[in-house]
Amino acid sequence: MIVSTQSVRFDSIQLESGVVITPVDVAYQTYGELNANRSNAILALHAFTGDAHAAGISEESGKPGWWDNMVGPHKAFDTNKYFVICANVLGGCRGTTGPSSIDPQTGKPFAMSFPMITIGDMVRLQHKLVTHLGISRLLAVAGGSMGGMQVLEWAVRYPDMVAAAFPIATTGRHSAQQIAFNEVGRQAIMADPDWNGGNYYGQNPPRRGLSVARMVGHITYMSDDSMREKFGRRFKSREGIAFAFDDEFEVESYLRYRGSQFVDRFDANSYLYITKAMDVFDLSQGFPTLGAALEQAKARFLVISFTSDWLYPSYQSLEIVSALRSRGKDVAYCELSSNYGHDAFLVEVGEQTELIRGFLGRVQKEAA
Amino acid sequence: MIVSTQSVRFDSIQLESGVVITPVDVAYQTYGELNANRSNAILALHAFTGDAHAAGISEESGKPGWWDNMVGPHKAFDTNKYFVICANVLGGCRGTTGPSSIDPQTGKPFAMSFPMITIGDMVRLQHKLVTHLGISRLLAVAGGSMGGMQVLEWAVRYPDMVAAAFPIATTGRHSAQQIAFNEVGRQAIMADPDWNGGNYYGQNPPRRGLSVARMVGHITYMSDDSMREKFGRRFKSREGIAFAFDDEFEVESYLRYRGSQFVDRFDANSYLYITKAMDVFDLSQGFPTLGAALEQAKARFLVISFTSDWLYPSYQSLEIVSALRSRGKDVAYCELSSNYGHDAFLVEVGEQTELIRGFLGRVQKEAA
Repeated sequence: MIVSTQSVRFDSIQLESGVVITPVDVAYQTYGELNANRSNAILALHAFTGDAHAAGISEESGKPGWWDNMVGPHKAFDTNKYFVICANVLGGCRGTTGPSSIDPQTGKPFAMSFPMITIGDMVRLQHKLVTHLGISRLLAVAGGSMGGMQVLEWAVRYPDMVAAAFPIATTGRHSAQQIAFNEVGRQAIMADPDWNGGNYYGQNPPRRGLSVARMVGHITYMSDDSMREKFGRRFKSREGIAFAFDDEFEVESYLRYRGSQFVDRFDANSYLYITKAMDVFDLSQGFPTLGAALEQAKARFLVISFTSDWLYPSYQSLEIVSALRSRGKDVAYCELSSNYGHDAFLVEVGEQTELIRGFLGRVQKEAA
Repeated sequence: MIVSTQSVRFDSIQLESGVVITPVDVAYQTYGELNANRSNAILALHAFTGDAHAAGISEESGKPGWWDNMVGPHKAFDTNKYFVICANVLGGCRGTTGPSSIDPQTGKPFAMSFPMITIGDMVRLQHKLVTHLGISRLLAVAGGSMGGMQVLEWAVRYPDMVAAAFPIATTGRHSAQQIAFNEVGRQAIMADPDWNGGNYYGQNPPRRGLSVARMVGHITYMSDDSMREKFGRRFKSREGIAFAFDDEFEVESYLRYRGSQFVDRFDANSYLYITKAMDVFDLSQGFPTLGAALEQAKARFLVISFTSDWLYPSYQSLEIVSALRSRGKDVAYCELSSNYGHDAFLVEVGEQTELIRGFLGRVQKEAA
């Protein structure tokens, strides 16, 4: 399945802060066919550094999508049955308007003049796209990590448009520890002189700072166990005490490699804006409690978390589940056993597929 | 109790690698009085960024020592009974020879020409100091975190000199995750142009890189719970969505403050050398198993870990305990309940005091 990224331009978007961005582009891909009564659409929402390329093989890069093991014919989100949409988020750097986009007022990249954005703003833009595609109700919204935050936001802000919601390995709001890890990444980027107050476009980007930020991220995406299994204490080169500061442990060269690789595909200012959007996200904002926020939702929920995920630990999913149950909402919760840490939502395909396939089938049958 | 740091210079030290450092200085403090038969000496071993100032009020800084709640009259290490010694480690920057020391060959700081050092080398230098003080057998060696690694090394390398060993919140070797966190810190420092290949003495030190490294460290020293209790999601300034990249959450300003504060008291090159020494430390090196290494030890062991310490989790202490038990060694193990994460070894005074006081009393009685 060869896929290519499409783009649509909207005249403007008004952010939660009141600021208006004019115009705004959205990069997106779709998989499968929208049925005649437009009732089989599913919105897949990507995590922090993801993009619109969720499934299939990219015409541009030749690479599979970030959720290719879950989206496709006969997969969890079966594209023989469903019409799946994935869009790059507002603030991103993969085709949707973000800090690296040209500000039409100046003819230069926005850089740090880009307005602050929220998870709610990302969802507002997705809402525009979905409406543009002629869809008035989504069979499901699904995503892990930051994608899961958008799922929750969708269910609360557009309750009549969401039949099923799958928030995976996510939270209704960041803990102090989650904010702290993101802040370290931001500080690493801003500490790099090449960041230059965000004005590095056309020059050297802050490669070193962004690479360090990504290294921290990778540690938090894995588990103590999965790192032990993958790397142990294996030396890349020499044994013994004749060591130096060069590559020594495999885990070091892995992190350096992943850090430097990341710099080629991600914009440092997008890193700042998107992590900040995650940190300020609080589903209960504007409501007395999390339960009161989720009271708005009309979707059936399937909440999934993973035993070894210490970045988005299961207790955060349980807070969502408890809040939903306290309001008599329809919610199923599964904590899946996995050693992969937070990465589990991308790699633990088997059980997620069974759960999602069954849940989707039930929702579609009842909606019919 | 006003204390001041003393210093002793030795002609040389031969490192495990065979390299010789000539001469070598050791900064140390002592508390209490050595008894007539020199049988009441205890060596306190500091963690990564600690120094010789373990207890009392420093004559130089006016500040209490890093283990002042545990070392002093009527405290866990009762200086009315015991003679306590604490020395800055080899490779450090608080009076003991390290990369910021002047290389007598060149008249300039060693910087990155300082030889690679190991936990074993730190212990070799402590052995010189203890011998210099006329002590042939220590009643106890005690320390947390990297200090605990030195405790283990002492017990295995100088078995006849250690009556009791207290490795606290430590490990016999770093996991891939522990190495990874240290590597992020090193990369953050080396990514700072002010690091300049280590040649920043007399110029601007790599403040930004070292600060980011310290921020990562602080997250790993606390627990998810203790960060929530201390900071929650409290905003430092404004509420709501009118946010910016300035200080926002209290946890952010705390980390930035602790990061920048650290730069004034710690040398970036010492950070590199000491973290690397921790990463390559493997108590079992040169032995077929960890048990075979600990077979050498003759001390009584009291191993302590803390429930919420995810940087040095209890399973690492249990590996040591199991290895000791498999060799029929005398070992007591306590996992103490605490919310403070790895910091617990510095702040959970009550239960540690009871455990250590009782254990020390028994050891001293049997030795008499």
